[in-house]
Amino acid sequence: MDNLDKMRHTLSHVLAAAVRMLYPEVSFGIGPSIDNGFYYDIDFGGIKISDADLPKIEKNMRKIIARKLPMEKRVVSKTEALDWARDHKQKYKIELIEELPESSEISFYDLGDLFTDLCKGPHIKNTSEVGAFKLVRVAGAYWRGDEKREMLTRIYGVAFETEEELAAYLKQQEEAKARDHRKLGKELDLFCFSDLVGAGLPLFTPRGTELRELMANYSLSLRGREGFKKVWTPHITKTDLYKTSGHYAKFGDELFMVHSQVSGEDFAMKPMNCPHHAQIFASRPRTYRDMPVRYMEATTDYRDEKTGELGGLSRVRSLTQDDSHVFCRNDQIKDEVKRLVGIVKELYETMGMQKLRARLSYRSDEDKYLGDKKLWEMAQKQIKQAAIDNKLDYFEQEGEAAFYGPKIDFMAEDAIGREHQLATIQLDFVQPERFGLEFTNSKGEKEQPVMIHHATLGSIERFLSVFIEHTGGWFPFWCAPEQVRIVTVNDRVASYVSKITALLDEIVLDKPLKYNELRYTVDESADSLSKKIKRATEMKIPVLLIVGPKDVEAEVVSIRLRDKEEKIKLSKLADYLRNL
Amino acid sequence: MDNLDKMRHTLSHVLAAAVRMLYPEVSFGIGPSIDNGFYYDIDFGGIKISDADLPKIEKNMRKIIARKLPMEKRVVSKTEALDWARDHKQKYKIELIEELPESSEISFYDLGDLFTDLCKGPHIKNTSEVGAFKLVRVAGAYWRGDEKREMLTRIYGVAFETEEELAAYLKQQEEAKARDHRKLGKELDLFCFSDLVGAGLPLFTPRGTELRELMANYSLSLRGREGFKKVWTPHITKTDLYKTSGHYAKFGDELFMVHSQVSGEDFAMKPMNCPHHAQIFASRPRTYRDMPVRYMEATTDYRDEKTGELGGLSRVRSLTQDDSHVFCRNDQIKDEVKRLVGIVKELYETMGMQKLRARLSYRSDEDKYLGDKKLWEMAQKQIKQAAIDNKLDYFEQEGEAAFYGPKIDFMAEDAIGREHQLATIQLDFVQPERFGLEFTNSKGEKEQPVMIHHATLGSIERFLSVFIEHTGGWFPFWCAPEQVRIVTVNDRVASYVSKITALLDEIVLDKPLKYNELRYTVDESADSLSKKIKRATEMKIPVLLIVGPKDVEAEVVSIRLRDKEEKIKLSKLADYLRNL
Repeated sequence: MDNLDKMRHTLSHVLAAAVRMLYPEVSFGIGPSIDNGFYYDIDFGGIKISDADLPKIEKNMRKIIARKLPMEKRVVSKTEALDWARDHKQKYKIELIEELPESSEISFYDLGDLFTDLCKGPHIKNTSEVGAFKLVRVAGAYWRGDEKREMLTRIYGVAFETEEELAAYLKQQEEAKARDHRKLGKELDLFCFSDLVGAGLPLFTPRGTELRELMANYSLSLRGREGFKKVWTPHITKTDLYKTSGHYAKFGDELFMVHSQVSGEDFAMKPMNCPHHAQIFASRPRTYRDMPVRYMEATTDYRDEKTGELGGLSRVRSLTQDDSHVFCRNDQIKDEVKRLVGIVKELYETMGMQKLRARLSYRSDEDKYLGDKKLWEMAQKQIKQAAIDNKLDYFEQEGEAAFYGPKIDFMAEDAIGREHQLATIQLDFVQPERFGLEFTNSKGEKEQPVMIHHATLGSIERFLSVFIEHTGGWFPFWCAPEQVRIVTVNDRVASYVSKITALLDEIVLDKPLKYNELRYTVDESADSLSKKIKRATEMKIPVLLIVGPKDVEAEVVSIRLRDKEEKIKLSKLADYLRNL
Repeated sequence: MDNLDKMRHTLSHVLAAAVRMLYPEVSFGIGPSIDNGFYYDIDFGGIKISDADLPKIEKNMRKIIARKLPMEKRVVSKTEALDWARDHKQKYKIELIEELPESSEISFYDLGDLFTDLCKGPHIKNTSEVGAFKLVRVAGAYWRGDEKREMLTRIYGVAFETEEELAAYLKQQEEAKARDHRKLGKELDLFCFSDLVGAGLPLFTPRGTELRELMANYSLSLRGREGFKKVWTPHITKTDLYKTSGHYAKFGDELFMVHSQVSGEDFAMKPMNCPHHAQIFASRPRTYRDMPVRYMEATTDYRDEKTGELGGLSRVRSLTQDDSHVFCRNDQIKDEVKRLVGIVKELYETMGMQKLRARLSYRSDEDKYLGDKKLWEMAQKQIKQAAIDNKLDYFEQEGEAAFYGPKIDFMAEDAIGREHQLATIQLDFVQPERFGLEFTNSKGEKEQPVMIHHATLGSIERFLSVFIEHTGGWFPFWCAPEQVRIVTVNDRVASYVSKITALLDEIVLDKPLKYNELRYTVDESADSLSKKIKRATEMKIPVLLIVGPKDVEAEVVSIRLRDKEEKIKLSKLADYLRNL
């Protein structure tokens, strides 16, 4: 546990002590440190606590901290621990202590003489060292996450080593709130949910569909240039496919199961596409001259996520992957990985998220990995070499590999400094073996190919959740669902508008995506100009063309971008838009 | 029953009589007339019958026919009928007779004094009038279609009024066999099946995916031009959606049911997209100025078909529809239907299937239709008027409507004269009501829109099964997965080949689908020229460019099409290909 974690963990004890000063009858659940802060789950015994109660609790915390109390560990016997918990009427602590094995060390932490808590630690030595913090939110949480148990009140705090870091984090949170993709998704009419369809199953409106298609097409176009070919596979399969691949044993209980009422057969919805693609590879004999065989598909996978974990597009049940699989010879791995790393860099550069970190995810000594250990070591070496050769900003982490092989996961930083795990490149020696894939090598012998899994965007839905917040809904010109809106000052400009639209109809962008026809609308309504502009700005249309009677004779248009406005000749308009 | 049906039905009795002459101990099941002919299901009591036995049975049939025997009906009592069946040891007939209600008329048909059968009729009067026929095939068939009952032997015959018609039909069958899309799908590497994935779930290879995407994109592009916008919807939904739409009550037992192991919720795979699209329409308030709202989506639906009915791409479990829905005002129906009819005509013209018949499918008096009868009548009138206005070759049929409204189904004729039901336009007043869809009309009141369902290709998989057989795998240039193959005479032409490929890279077709980049490969292998040409011809590549050393200096290429060969200047190549 690093020092910041210790500070946060200590703050959760301080929080508990402060709460007990105000509400002496409370029972405490658990209070761990978490990413960015800490929380404590507390049973207030029927008293309703809301965000409005946080300032007074926080005030008490600051008083306790100012007393510079020591945090001291004390090892006790199980009997002593139980006696203490019973004396203090701490029923949740009793439950926790009773479950501890006799042999385990049980410890208390004393916050000066103010507050004692059952705790493994570790903690910082003194409350004077807790750093900067703020209580932020009250939520409900079932005791032990079990919806059949008591509902406790969870108080969340955020904490950092310095006031500056805390302020920066709070500012980022505020910015994130303004950019919340669920809010923007509604305002910009990108996607919707329906109670009749279900949670985690977004429906994309025309604008949202335009956006997701542009993303997917751009992503696949980069691979198309590198020799990948599209394939198409169904969304269900007999479970035999996953029994053979090894997925069933690993993830069988996370599959959406499909039942045929007609034949009685059992199917599953595909949660990934590799086994399907392996079947296409296996459908014909292959020789070394055919290799590498490269398949790609933007297709929707289904994962049975917990309802409570679903949120907007960040976590959905229907996730569309821009997936691909290379089947290659061992001597082609290096080139293929390089090709994919290049694609990742290019795509995130285009998206304005050029700051990428790569995590090299290796196996640990746990039992959950399939395949020969020697192959794993060889593959991990190749991945590391690829990271070095391609000058990636990388770090290594054990225990993060897929069950079938090591991988490179890419973390991209967004406009407000948050890091998101998106693209991935994964080596796989296991599935080719389990599916008996083979090609004839130059000696006429059968040889097993390697599979390289890759998704550049990852899940398109999750990527969109990041991209919408990254851009705050002000999408780059090339991918804005509505790129241009013509706004008329009055109805005397109709024929001039036709002239402009004829010109716009001719514009086809070729970068970064080829054959990208201009998407525009015309607002010729009788509303006032200011109302029309307001409406367009709310929809975050990147380019407004404002057309008034005076512009007709001069053959000009007023262009209003997000951050500037200018008048240009109609004859220059096409070039102007092509260069945005 | 028309006369041809009577002829065919009589032939099934003649078949039975002929069989009994050869195998006196057989038991007869049923022997109806069917499309193009007749069959009889017979229990041969352990004797194995194959196609090789058909000539001798057919010979006996012809002898019987030559005797010009009368077919005479005789009404009997149930007791008489049972006595007869027991005397003749006809156990299947006993079962049939026992199930007849006491009140029903029971009749026998006597074929002269040769053969008596339990039969409702009607029949022709004399075997001399049976027309032209041929026995074609032996198959297995469970008694009463129940796989738990006896397996009988089914003998199929084809029959027509004249020998010419029979010959034409047999020739068509032979042609169809050579064009069988399952065979071509394999030979041209378009799609495959995997036992691990399951029956009725095709996987599309790169070539097949190219073809299906071109078809879908072309189809949607025609609607895109008419103001349709793409939307995206997930492949599963809570069953609540279909309970509301009315589909659940009608087709609940044909749904693939999806179960969440995590939340315990029940979902279904979508067998159609209208309810999903209705949810997108319902996600925002709409006014009369927004109408019509037009959504389209090429998306995969899942239908729980019987395993025995699955075959190649003709009937699959995963069917991708080029689906669309218009939400419009009543006064817009006519224009919208006209728009769609125009699209259907244009698409089938492009596909070389311009001979279209339209079936106007109306409700019958049965109970299975939802919605107000008056609305139905109004809608049926509108559909008929649309057929007349658009000069469709139409016929009317009661009882073929969807449960929610009347429709126009289009039948297209293929290259060997077979008719296939493909495109459809359907009016729907029921779902808008059940989903409570509304828009604000010009008076500021809430009004209910009409939905118009339309698919131009229908199911893309089924369309492909038709199109592959229609073209025999010789796809039109614009949609051939591999349009051009460069075949080299020897390795001295490498740099000239680069010059040609640079030229091909510049070619982008704009008709019938825009931005259609040329798809070509180069066969530079060391194989002989004849072997290379043979290989390309087997793959039915529409254009071969044969390049030899002599062509280099003259800057020419030899173009070999399916039906002609010519040498042209390299400088003319681009125009030549663009005009194919």
